[in-house]
Amino acid sequence: MRLRNVKNKEEIMSQSSYLIRDPENYKGKWKDVFSNSNPIFVEIGMGKGQFVIQNALLHPNINYIGIEKYDSVIAKALQKIPDGLKNLVMVRGDASFIDTFFDHEIDQIYLNFSDPWPKKRHHLRRLSSSFFLEKYESVFCGKKVIEMRTDNSSLFQYSLVSFSTFGYVLEEISFDLHAEGIPEVTTEYEDKFSNQEMPIYFVRCMKE
Amino acid sequence: MRLRNVKNKEEIMSQSSYLIRDPENYKGKWKDVFSNSNPIFVEIGMGKGQFVIQNALLHPNINYIGIEKYDSVIAKALQKIPDGLKNLVMVRGDASFIDTFFDHEIDQIYLNFSDPWPKKRHHLRRLSSSFFLEKYESVFCGKKVIEMRTDNSSLFQYSLVSFSTFGYVLEEISFDLHAEGIPEVTTEYEDKFSNQEMPIYFVRCMKE
Repeated sequence: MRLRNVKNKEEIMSQSSYLIRDPENYKGKWKDVFSNSNPIFVEIGMGKGQFVIQNALLHPNINYIGIEKYDSVIAKALQKIPDGLKNLVMVRGDASFIDTFFDHEIDQIYLNFSDPWPKKRHHLRRLSSSFFLEKYESVFCGKKVIEMRTDNSSLFQYSLVSFSTFGYVLEEISFDLHAEGIPEVTTEYEDKFSNQEMPIYFVRCMKE
Repeated sequence: MRLRNVKNKEEIMSQSSYLIRDPENYKGKWKDVFSNSNPIFVEIGMGKGQFVIQNALLHPNINYIGIEKYDSVIAKALQKIPDGLKNLVMVRGDASFIDTFFDHEIDQIYLNFSDPWPKKRHHLRRLSSSFFLEKYESVFCGKKVIEMRTDNSSLFQYSLVSFSTFGYVLEEISFDLHAEGIPEVTTEYEDKFSNQEMPIYFVRCMKE
C-alpha cells in the first residue's frame, strides 16, 4: 500500500492504547490482551483499518487483530478506531514473523487485497503461498479458516491452487463478490474497485 | 447441445465400427476393446468429437472413449473419425449410468463445455456435482484426474467448490485458457467462444 508520510505518526502511535508494537511478547497470552476467551480473527495487511474496525463493531463477541507493517498506514488506522472499542487491537509487524506472534490462538485469517507479487520468482512472498501457509499452521487453533478478497485475477488463481494443494477445502468461491449486493463490511480497496465496477474475487477455505 | 436431426443417423451408426451402443457389456473388459493395456481417457459429452479425435491422433499410446447421448450428435462425430484410428471408440450412453459402464478402468475424465444446468434445484445434474463425483469413484483406476473446460463462470465456480469438497486437489487453474496461446487440441465450442474472445475457464484436479 502506498501512502503519504503521516508527519505525526510517532505521536499517534505512542498515544494509542490500541497499538501493540511487540506482538512476540504476547505469544500464548492473547486471551489476556482481550480479557476473555472469545474467538480471535486476524487480518494480515489491514491497511487503513476499515474492514477490521467495522467487523469489531458488528461482532462484539469476536476479537479482532489487524496487522500492518507500515507506520504511516497504521497511524491512519489507529485514528479511525471509535472510543471504547474493546474487541480490537492493531499490531505493527511483518507477517513473515507471524508464527512468532501467535501460538495456536487464532480462529480465522483474512487476506484482503494482499500484494500480488506478480513476478514468478517472488511467488513465496504472496500471503497465500506455501511459505505463509506453513507459518499459519502454528498460528491457528483447531479448524483453520482463511478468507481472501482480491481484485487480482492472477493472485486469485494462484491462491486457489496453493490453498487446495496445502490441504484446504474451498468452501465458498465468488468471481464477483458484489454481484448480489455490497457486503456489510468492506475494505477501502474494495470500495474503490467496486466503484470502478471491477469484479472482486472471494474465497473462503478451511482445513481441519 | 442443439443439433439438427441427421436423417441417415441410423445408417451411419449401424455401419460404424467405432460405435458402442451397449457399454454395460464391456464393463471390466475395456482392455479387450483396445487390445492393449494403455491408459484410458474418457470425455463425457463429447459433442461432435473434435476434441477426442484430435487427442487420439496426437497420443497413440492413450486410448480414448467419447461418450454422447444424442444420436444425431454421435452420428456427426462418427463421420469425422479418420480411417484406421485404433485408440478411439465412441459410446452412445447417458453419463448418469457411467458407473455401469466401467469398473476401475479409467485414468482421466474430461468435462468439456458441459451443460451448466443453471437452476439451483438442478445442480445435481451438473457433471461436476457430488452425484456424479460419487459415480466416478468406481470408474477411475488409481489416481483420479478430471479436467474441465467451460465458458460458464457460474458452473466453474460451482465446480471448483464441488471438486474441492469431494477431496480433489486443484492442481492447475486458468480463468483464460487461451490467453497464452491456443491449445493443441480444442473442442468445437472452445473454437466458437475463443473466436468471440470470451474467456475459457480451465481446471485440472486430482484425487489420490
